Amino acid sequence: MKSNFPQANCIVEAVGEQSATVRRTIGFNELRPGGTVSGPVLMTIADYALYVAILGEIGIVSLAVTTSLTINFMRKPSPTKDIIAKCTLLKVGKLLVVGEVTLYSEGDAKAVAHVVGTYSIPQLT
Amino acid sequence: MKSNFPQANCIVEAVGEQSATVRRTIGFNELRPGGTVSGPVLMTIADYALYVAILGEIGIVSLAVTTSLTINFMRKPSPTKDIIAKCTLLKVGKLLVVGEVTLYSEGDAKAVAHVVGTYSIPQLT
Amino acid sequence: MKSNFPQANCIVEAVGEQSATVRRTIGFNELRPGGTVSGPVLMTIADYALYVAILGEIGIVSLAVTTSLTINFMRKPSPTKDIIAKCTLLKVGKLLVVGEVTLYSEGDAKAVAHVVGTYSIPQLT
Amino acid sequence: MKSNFPQANCIVEAVGEQSATVRRTIGFNELRPGGTVSGPVLMTIADYALYVAILGEIGIVSLAVTTSLTINFMRKPSPTKDIIAKCTLLKVGKLLVVGEVTLYSEGDAKAVAHVVGTYSIPQLT
Repeated sequence: MKSNFPQANCIVEAVGEQSATVRRTIGFNELRPGGTVSGPVLMTIADYALYVAILGEIGIVSLAVTTSLTINFMRKPSPTKDIIAKCTLLKVGKLLVVGEVTLYSEGDAKAVAHVVGTYSIPQLT
Repeated sequence: MKSNFPQANCIVEAVGEQSATVRRTIGFNELRPGGTVSGPVLMTIADYALYVAILGEIGIVSLAVTTSLTINFMRKPSPTKDIIAKCTLLKVGKLLVVGEVTLYSEGDAKAVAHVVGTYSIPQLT
Repeated sequence: MKSNFPQANCIVEAVGEQSATVRRTIGFNELRPGGTVSGPVLMTIADYALYVAILGEIGIVSLAVTTSLTINFMRKPSPTKDIIAKCTLLKVGKLLVVGEVTLYSEGDAKAVAHVVGTYSIPQLT
Repeated sequence: MKSNFPQANCIVEAVGEQSATVRRTIGFNELRPGGTVSGPVLMTIADYALYVAILGEIGIVSLAVTTSLTINFMRKPSPTKDIIAKCTLLKVGKLLVVGEVTLYSEGDAKAVAHVVGTYSIPQLT
């Protein structure tokens, strides 16, 4: 799993028990006016971290889909540091998975954003 | 702070650094059909835990108001166990506080619900 | 359906196509310091409006349960006016229903709060 | 305002009283496995629609920042239709703006996703 998934431009750093850590390098394309990482980029990384944590828990479920996502932006991310996203699954049900993701600028202990997301697991019938 | 606040029917168990734990006894009035704790009761407890954690951090700010709250219900709470709510503040800014609360039926390590809330801190002008 | 459901202290005013309107009388028990309606009371009313709209759409499903709820508090409700909640269902799926609720102090066109909630529909197996 | 903002790849279709409509053409880069528009693309469009509606209401406030965003995904978007996002502001306060956005695949009356977002308005001091 520690490979680069091109579509999200993220690197999977770790997949553990109901958890995952992913990293995204930040460059010019990820910035917005004001010299900070854009909100949609943070949402993309968080969504990806949730997806990786779910894969690590229940295996490849390629049709798992996000059903909801709530993000709170808390601090201005550094424009020159990677974003590190740490995901913990809060519930792994048959139909629904709930997880949270905390996002950091690398090297700073204070989170830049927090996400709670839910994924629906498709049923084989 | 370890006193009983009658309006929320909650007991403050602990207030720490950017955190708080509160407890609510569950009785007939807190249940809904199906023999479980009603959702609004869980929201009330979470809102209260956030409020206590903020008081513990920045002192009495009687006009602090909740500006948003997102709750995910994850498991059916026990109708006979107290609800324990553990709050951690994620950001304590001048204008806005963000915190999360995880709710448990006492004695069960799996959370019954998870809340993210934001509080606005009124400015003295 | 236009009867009084004692558990939520709400009156169902209307149930239409994928919609519902409910009312709750506000008295001393619904207020918080500062002379306004407490947040948990608003959440309770919104949750109830969602439930009524779902009942109106798919019939009595007594085990339908709220899976998530996001509330944004926007204005201070009047302590002396009823709260009116207008719910519109955004999606009625087999497994999941999504709806929004806008809450008003009666007679004021500006909303006091806005809610998005999801309900899970239990599957008969 | 009816010009193309390159950074979000969106076209502003209309800006009205506390509202805005924007469009985004969908191509290969916006799709995910399963042949549907990716969630982060929908979040990006919604965030942009909110930003445009706020600009239309209070003028250029280049440092206005998203503080929270909740998205519910409701239906699978068409991979071959543009996404149309309709934003309505629910509250325009001095410090905080709250708005909702409903997202459609062009030509389909049923929404693919619904967003509630909050923006913080920086204070000049």
